[in-house]
Order: sequence, then C-alpha cells, then structure tokens
Amino acid sequence: MTPRWARLQRAAAERGIDALIVTPGADLRYLTGYDAKPLERLTAFLVPASGDPLLVVPELERSAAVASGVDLEIVAWAETDDPFTLVADRLAGAARIAVDDHMWGIRLLTLQDRLPSTAFTPAGELIAPLRAIKQPDEVAALREAAAAIDRVHARMGDWLRPGRTEREVGADIARAIVAEGHVRVDFVIVGSGPNGASPHHEVSERVIGVGDPVVVDIGGTMPSGYCSDSTRNYVAGGAAPAAYVDAYAVLLAAQEAQRAYARAGVTAESIDEVGRTILRNSGYGDLFIHRTGHGIGLETHEEPYIVAGNRTVLEPGMAFSIEPGFYLDGHYGARIEDIVVATDTGLDVLNQTPRDLLILD
Amino acid sequence: MTPRWARLQRAAAERGIDALIVTPGADLRYLTGYDAKPLERLTAFLVPASGDPLLVVPELERSAAVASGVDLEIVAWAETDDPFTLVADRLAGAARIAVDDHMWGIRLLTLQDRLPSTAFTPAGELIAPLRAIKQPDEVAALREAAAAIDRVHARMGDWLRPGRTEREVGADIARAIVAEGHVRVDFVIVGSGPNGASPHHEVSERVIGVGDPVVVDIGGTMPSGYCSDSTRNYVAGGAAPAAYVDAYAVLLAAQEAQRAYARAGVTAESIDEVGRTILRNSGYGDLFIHRTGHGIGLETHEEPYIVAGNRTVLEPGMAFSIEPGFYLDGHYGARIEDIVVATDTGLDVLNQTPRDLLILD
Repeated sequence: MTPRWARLQRAAAERGIDALIVTPGADLRYLTGYDAKPLERLTAFLVPASGDPLLVVPELERSAAVASGVDLEIVAWAETDDPFTLVADRLAGAARIAVDDHMWGIRLLTLQDRLPSTAFTPAGELIAPLRAIKQPDEVAALREAAAAIDRVHARMGDWLRPGRTEREVGADIARAIVAEGHVRVDFVIVGSGPNGASPHHEVSERVIGVGDPVVVDIGGTMPSGYCSDSTRNYVAGGAAPAAYVDAYAVLLAAQEAQRAYARAGVTAESIDEVGRTILRNSGYGDLFIHRTGHGIGLETHEEPYIVAGNRTVLEPGMAFSIEPGFYLDGHYGARIEDIVVATDTGLDVLNQTPRDLLILD
Repeated sequence: MTPRWARLQRAAAERGIDALIVTPGADLRYLTGYDAKPLERLTAFLVPASGDPLLVVPELERSAAVASGVDLEIVAWAETDDPFTLVADRLAGAARIAVDDHMWGIRLLTLQDRLPSTAFTPAGELIAPLRAIKQPDEVAALREAAAAIDRVHARMGDWLRPGRTEREVGADIARAIVAEGHVRVDFVIVGSGPNGASPHHEVSERVIGVGDPVVVDIGGTMPSGYCSDSTRNYVAGGAAPAAYVDAYAVLLAAQEAQRAYARAGVTAESIDEVGRTILRNSGYGDLFIHRTGHGIGLETHEEPYIVAGNRTVLEPGMAFSIEPGFYLDGHYGARIEDIVVATDTGLDVLNQTPRDLLILD
C-alpha cells in the first residue's frame, strides 16, 4: 500500500511546496503510525516533495520510534546536540516549507530564524483534506469508538439521579468511559437545568433536581487513537418543563432532517442551514447559538466543520458530528449529537442509542 | 496582589516588546488562572506592555472564562466572525509581539500574515523565568502532588509481582494515580529487565520475571494543575543480578550527592556534573545517557533543565527533578527521581518514599 506520506508528497509537489515538517500530534500519527509524545525534545518528520522522508528523533526516543513499526530512515540526536541545526541542514535551499498546524510557535520561530530565505506555510492545507476522508479501517475505528460511548450512555440510569451533583455523576461517567474501552477521557459535560444553557459547561457542584433536563455530552480516545463524541438528553425523574418538551420535539425533528439530508455531494454549510431553518421556523432560531458540527477522527475536532460559510462539498468517507441544540439562558439547554460518515447515498450513522428525551426514574 | 500578567508587562517593556499574545495552555493558566480548553476556536490573552490586557474568547466559552474568576476585560467573538481580524485590529502598529511558546503554528502564521510589519518572538523568554520560580502556594501544590505520587509508590507491592505483565501492573498504577488525587494520568513507565534499559519505555506485554529489576517512573496532574513525577526501582521477588546491585549503590550515592550539593546559587549544569562524575569514577559514565533533570510545575517538563550547557544559576523557589540513571542495553536500567525545590541553604525534597532498591516478596 502507498504510505500516507507518499500521497502527501504528491499534494506538496502540486502546490510548489519543497518539503513538510511534521512534529508530534495527530498529523504525525496519521502519516506514520508513530504516536510520539509531545516532548520538549524535538521529534520532526521531514518529508521532501520527492525522495525519501526522514524521522528526526531524540536519542532517548529512538527505541520508541522503532517499536512503533515505522518503515522510515531515523536520525537520532544526542542530549546536548541542537536538533534545529540538523533539520535546517537537511532542508537548506528549500524555498517553501509547510509545517504542521499544531507545531509549537517557538519551533516555527526557530526554523524561520535558521532558514531566513524560506517561506513557511501551514501543512494543514495539504494534510487536512487527506485526514478528512476516512478509509475503511478508520471508519471501523470510529464505529468502535461510537459503540463504546453508546455503551456509556446506555448505563446513564445507573448514575443520573436527583440529589446527586453533576460532579458525582461526571466521575461515574469518566470511569465508565475508560471501562468501556477508551484509553483517555476527553470531556464530560453534565449540564443540568440552567447549566445546560452553556454549551461548553463541564460539571459543577450543582445538585440535580427532580424534573431537571440534563445535557450529557461525552467522549474519549480509543487505543486506535480515534475519538468518540455523543450527546443525549435526560430528565432525572419527574416531568420536564412543558416548554422544554415542545422545543425538544422541534430539535429532534431538525436533527433527523439533517441526518436525512446529509450525503456526499452537498455542502457542509447546507447541512447547517437545513437544521437552522427548522428551528427558526418554530421560533427557536435565536436559541441555536453554535454551528451544527465538526469533523472527527484522530482529533475530536477536525475538518470538515459543518458551519455557515463552509462551502466544502462533502465526499464519501467524511466523518463529522451533527449536533444542533437550543439554549435558554437561566433555564435549560438541549443538544442531540451523532457521529456520521457521508456516503454517496446518505449517511452511515455510527451512534445508535435512542435520541428521545429519556426520563430516568 | 499584583497580577502575574502585570509582572510580565514590566519584563516586556524592558525588552522592547510591545505586546504578548498567549493562547490556551500552561502559560495562560499561570498568568490568569483560566484553564481554557485547547480548542480550534481561538482564545487569546492580549497583554500590551502598558495598559489593560484583554481576553479574547469564542462566544461559546464566555461563560467558562467568566466562571474561572478572571478579573479581566473579555471580548467574545461570534461563531462566524474571524477572531484574527479582531486580534490584529487591537494590536495594529505593534513593532514587536511575543507569542506563547506553544501557540499553534497555524495561528502564528496567520498573525504574521495579518501583521506583516510586526516582528514575532517567543514569549517563553519572558514567561519561563517567572514560572520557574515557584511562589509558596505553588510549592504547596507541588508538595501535594508529590505526596499523592508517593502514596502510589507506597502501594507498589500490591501490584508488582513476577508473572504479571508490565501492562497489567501499569493499569493498576494508572487507577491508583487517579484514586490518590490526580485528575489526569500523565505517564506510567514500568520497565522490567531489559525494558528498563530504555528510559522512555512505557509498558509492554512482557511478563515480569523473578529477580527482574523494574524501573517505575510515574506522574500525573492534580486539580491545581501542578504535576507529580517520581521514579523508584523494584525487584519483583528473588535477587537482582549482582552487577546491577553494585551499580545501584553507586547511582544512589550519586543521587544523594546531587541532593546534598544542589541549592540556590549553583548552576544547573553543575548539579548534572556532580552526579555524572561519581558515576564516571566508578566506570558507569557511559551508562548515564540523559540529563539529570527538568523543571516541573504546571507542566511536567519546563525550565530549568538540569543539563550540561545550562549555566542558569538556581534561585530560591526553582522546582526540578534530580533523576540520574544507568542503562545497560539488553539487560536492565535504573533511575532514582525526586522533585526538589531550591532554597538558600539546600533543597526542599518533596518526594519522601525510600530510595533503596526495594525487594518485593
């Protein structure tokens, strides 16, 4: 199989970029399979537009790089060497170099200083389009992640009860995220009552009351590196406010319409508009205060973003969230979120738990 | 009390820097107390060399920023705004801007594009010297972290036994790191027998054998944001190889000598040389293949680095690790690591578990 970095070389050559430099992070893992630690000692993957790439690692990390199974030339630098000299020597003469989007600023400034006649550009323009279209093994990894987070949502009745604090419930959820197969808890949002009105609220000491709507938005990273992310809405005993139940029905219809509409060939922004129109037509337009979704893969948030202004046309294999919501300050909020993969005929919906407002007795 | 960012303003003015831009990470948490999530939506703390600073946040994060208790002017940008326009407008005319060392490369490239006549430099030169000298509340937080990881080491006999794999032992340790008060497991190294010879080995399927030396290097992050990091060495039943026991005695003497020597007023590199000399004089010099240590605080690795070539003179309040080791390829390794804080008269040693080679029966 062609290595992923070889596909990147073709994209670089087409854009007149002489070389790429990729430091530890999701881009490096995607391109090489090496999940390098984000250390202060420089690891850098140098990919010329043509010819063999090179993995520069600290001597201390050489065995970890080899153990990762990379089939690459490795050059290790010793504890008192300057790795930037090594990198600059290898890339001397390059007119245009692309660096990974998350490269540390101090590293970019050092490279700019060492290679003063080189123009630097973001490598995301080249890498993100590759990463955005998931191959079958990546879709399988996302499906496994979705199933794991679905199992956590399915157990919510064990933990979410009136009288417990959001923090207590969140701690139980965090343990379950790991117990169900993730290696890392990325986020746990338990937004009860008025806290649900802040989309990025996490947990608090608030005691969940009878009849409180509760937004639960949770995700983690699997051993594969691929991420989960799913939001469901619960009522902890009793009856939710009637106005909330009415709005929830519209939200569910909007999210269903977005799932029915989305497929390869439509623009990212049009998916957002489909949901926004339904909420607006019922008078909830002002309460849907964020974009519809984000791509997902080796990072929880990556391209494509499902947001007004993004005219990217979806392609088969693009994986992203569909998560419209409504937020009424001081009262409550709701958000329904699934991870989906675009196909030519519709969507492969990875999350499978029911989307109805779930009353936990 | 003077806010930390105000001390930064003085340092910036002295160096002819007109403004700083700090994105989410340890620098932002240190300067403002706001532990912002590292999202793709831009959060940026703008600190002019004089006058009031400004916290730019995505609208979705406004309530989280306010809840963090920051006493700062906050400007929120809406989902379809361009936050870089906002930042560039505010900083137009600045000749020199310093950006946090870990700012994403794509953000720095965007800022360079929007402010073409501005020179950008790393803010670490200004912030790291402040962060390196811990205030009493920070030393207390590091002491709490050290006590938490000491409690994990104290329970090692519950888990580390011949016949178990490194991975099984590591999973027990990871659970205990959280149970003892950390909010995040940062690393778990269980290097048994020959795996101990790779300083950054993590865990593997290797079954621990009778008489294997085992390096256990573990750490996590506390709710305060401050980190723990401590290494101890165990023998899982039986007797370790005689040559290993001999080398271990020299290593322990070297680490003790470094702790006896280090204090405010000596250079970072001289601490390294003290330990290296003792190992070298006993014929183990070639086996000590890494630096002596690293600073620690809101990040596990930060300044000051205890390494040859670093002539930084230690000041009271500097916190760092002392962790000499020896590594014999194909056989075994050992490393003894404590977190210490420099004082005028010596060291405040935060880790308290015994440093002897511990035979677990």
